[in-house]
Amino acid sequence: MAEAHEARLTAAGNEMSASFLAAKKRSDETLAKLEENPGKFTMLTGDRPTGRLHLGHFFGSIKERVAMQNRGVNTNIIIADYQVITDRDTTEHIDDNVLNLVIDYMAAGIDPERTMIFTHSAIPAENQLMLPFLSLVTEAELHRNPTVKSEMESSGHALTGLLLTYPVHQACDILFCKANVVPIGKDNLPHVEITRTIARRFNERYAKKNPIFPEPAAILSDAPEIPGLDGRKMSKSYGNSIMLGATAEETAKLIKKSPTDSDRNITFDPENRPQVAALLTTAGLVTGRDPAEIAEEIGNGGGGALKAYVTESVNEFLAPHRERREELAKDMDTIRDILHDGNRRANAIANETLDQVREAMGMRYDR
Amino acid sequence: MAEAHEARLTAAGNEMSASFLAAKKRSDETLAKLEENPGKFTMLTGDRPTGRLHLGHFFGSIKERVAMQNRGVNTNIIIADYQVITDRDTTEHIDDNVLNLVIDYMAAGIDPERTMIFTHSAIPAENQLMLPFLSLVTEAELHRNPTVKSEMESSGHALTGLLLTYPVHQACDILFCKANVVPIGKDNLPHVEITRTIARRFNERYAKKNPIFPEPAAILSDAPEIPGLDGRKMSKSYGNSIMLGATAEETAKLIKKSPTDSDRNITFDPENRPQVAALLTTAGLVTGRDPAEIAEEIGNGGGGALKAYVTESVNEFLAPHRERREELAKDMDTIRDILHDGNRRANAIANETLDQVREAMGMRYDR
Repeated sequence: MAEAHEARLTAAGNEMSASFLAAKKRSDETLAKLEENPGKFTMLTGDRPTGRLHLGHFFGSIKERVAMQNRGVNTNIIIADYQVITDRDTTEHIDDNVLNLVIDYMAAGIDPERTMIFTHSAIPAENQLMLPFLSLVTEAELHRNPTVKSEMESSGHALTGLLLTYPVHQACDILFCKANVVPIGKDNLPHVEITRTIARRFNERYAKKNPIFPEPAAILSDAPEIPGLDGRKMSKSYGNSIMLGATAEETAKLIKKSPTDSDRNITFDPENRPQVAALLTTAGLVTGRDPAEIAEEIGNGGGGALKAYVTESVNEFLAPHRERREELAKDMDTIRDILHDGNRRANAIANETLDQVREAMGMRYDR
Repeated sequence: MAEAHEARLTAAGNEMSASFLAAKKRSDETLAKLEENPGKFTMLTGDRPTGRLHLGHFFGSIKERVAMQNRGVNTNIIIADYQVITDRDTTEHIDDNVLNLVIDYMAAGIDPERTMIFTHSAIPAENQLMLPFLSLVTEAELHRNPTVKSEMESSGHALTGLLLTYPVHQACDILFCKANVVPIGKDNLPHVEITRTIARRFNERYAKKNPIFPEPAAILSDAPEIPGLDGRKMSKSYGNSIMLGATAEETAKLIKKSPTDSDRNITFDPENRPQVAALLTTAGLVTGRDPAEIAEEIGNGGGGALKAYVTESVNEFLAPHRERREELAKDMDTIRDILHDGNRRANAIANETLDQVREAMGMRYDR
C-alpha cells in the first residue's frame, strides 16, 4: 500500500512537471506570436481588493500589464471583489481598496481608454457562466487543485463553497471576454489549466461546429520573487512591504526599522544574509542595477549606509507614481466614472457571450 | 471505533428526525397563517425541464400551486433549466420541454398574470447571488446534504460541481424573489434548511440592521406518493406514467399493457398486490373515490374490467386539460411571449435584490 501510494505521488509529481513544461513551452510560443501581432491577443488579469498595492505588485504584475497595453494587446483588468470573501467573513474597507486599485493602475500607466477596468460584482452575465461551467467539472477535479488547498490552509478558515469553486469563477473571468492570454505566476497555473479544460469541454459538448471559447495560454511571469524588507514573504501582516501609495517619510521609517545583521561589511548573500539581501534586491529593482554591485559599492558602510541608499532609491523611483496618484485622488468622481465605464463595457461583452452560450445550449425559449 | 461510528449515526438520525419535526410544525403553523392572510406570502416552486409532466406531477404539485395562486398567494414558478445539466451532459429537447411545461401549467389553471413563470437561465442577477451565497456555506455542509448524494448515486454520473452546489442555486431561486414559503416533498427539506441558513448568515454578516432575506418555511406536501402504473416509482425510463399531454388512445394503450396479476377478484392491497393497487390508486385520485370502494365495485371483473374503469376515469379527468393544452399549443408565439414577460418581471425583481445585496456588502463603487 505504502509503495503504491509513493509510486502514485511520484507519478503525480512527474505529471505536474510535464504539464509545467508544456505550459512553459506554450507561454514562450505565445509570447513570440504576441510580439509579432499584439492586436490578435486579449489579456485578462486582475487583483483581489484586500488591501493597497505594494512594490511587489508593481514589479510582479502591474509593470507587465502596462507593457502589454502599450504593445497593443487588448488588455482587461478585473477587480475580483467576490474573491475577498473566499476566505474571510467581511468586506470591510472594500470600497476604499477598489478605488485605490484604480488609482494605482492609472498612476502606473494603465490607460482606461485602452484597458478595460471593471469589478467582478458588477457583471451579472459573467457570473451566470458559473452555472454551465460548474457542470463541466467534477468535484474531484475541484479538489485536486493544489492552490485552493494551500490558500485554504494559509487562511485558517474552513473551506467555503466559494473558495472550492474559485478556479471556476476565474474561468468565467477569463472566458467571458474570450481572453487568450493570462499572465500568471507558476502557482496559478492550475487555474489556467482548468479554464482550458472548461473551454474545451464546453465547445465539444455544445458548440462543436462553431467553438465559442478560446483555450487561453498562461503567460508565465519571469519576474523574480520580491522579498519583503525583512527577507520574509511580502505580507500585510508582517508590515514588510513598501506601499506604492505611502509617503516618502513613511517609506523611510519602514526601511529604517527593517532588520539587518551585525556584519558591517555589506555583501549580497541571499542564503546566509536574507535580510541584507532583501534590501539589496529592492534597491536593485528600483535602480535597475545588480544587487551585488550595490553591495560592493557600500562595502563597509554597514546597515545604515545600505538603508540610506535603499530609502533614497525607492523614494526617487516612486516619486512620479506618488505624484500622479495624489493628483488622481483629488477627483474621486472621475475614478468612479472610469469604473462605471469599464463596467458598462464589460457588461456589454458579457451579455453578448452569455447570449452565445444560451444559443449553443438551446436555452432561448422566449423569442 | 465501530461503536463510536454507530453512535454517531444514531445521533445523526435523531437530529434528522428532530429537524423534520420542527419543519413539520413550522409547515403547519405557516399554512394556518397563510390561510388567514395569503397576500403576505410569496411562494417559489418549479420543475426541471427534463421531460413532460405526468399525473404524478399534477397531483403531487401542480394542483397545489393552482390552489395557492387562487387563494391569493404571490406565486412564482421557476423552470430550472440549469438543473438539467447537474447530472447529464446534454440539453437535448430542452426547448420543447420548457414550452410544454408552460402549456401544462396554463392548462392546469395557472394564470400567468398572477403567477410569474420564468426560466433560470434568463435571470443573470439571480444567478450572481451564487457567489456571495457560496461564501456562506462550507464544503462540509454541501457534502452533508443527503439529497445531493442520493441524486448523484441514482444518476450514475460523477458528482459535478453543479450538482454539489445545487442546494445553493435553489437558495438563489428562493431568495432572489424573497419567497417565504416553499412547497416541497420531505426529500427536499435539506434544501430549504440550507436556504434558511444562507438567509440567516447573510443577514447576520451584512445586513444586521435591515435584514434583506426572509428565512423561508417549507410547506410539506401531504399528497400521497403516486405509484407508476406497474406499482414501481413513476419514471420516464419505466414507461409507467400517464402523461398529461398524451392522447386518450395513447393513455388507453399504456393502461392496457400495464401488468396485473392472475387473481380475478380485485382487492386494494398495496403490499401484496402492488400493480393492481397502483391502478386502483390512479383511479381513486382522478375520481376522488376511495380505491378500496372501487375495488369492491369491480369485484370479480378481473384485470380487464379494472383497466377499463381506470382508462375511462383517467381520460375523463384529463379531457378538459388536454383540450386546453391543445388549444394553447396552437399559438406558440403567445407561449413564448408569456415566458418573455415572466422573465422580464423576474429580472426586475432580481436586479433590485442584487442591488440591495451589493449595497449591504459595500460593493457599490461606481456611483
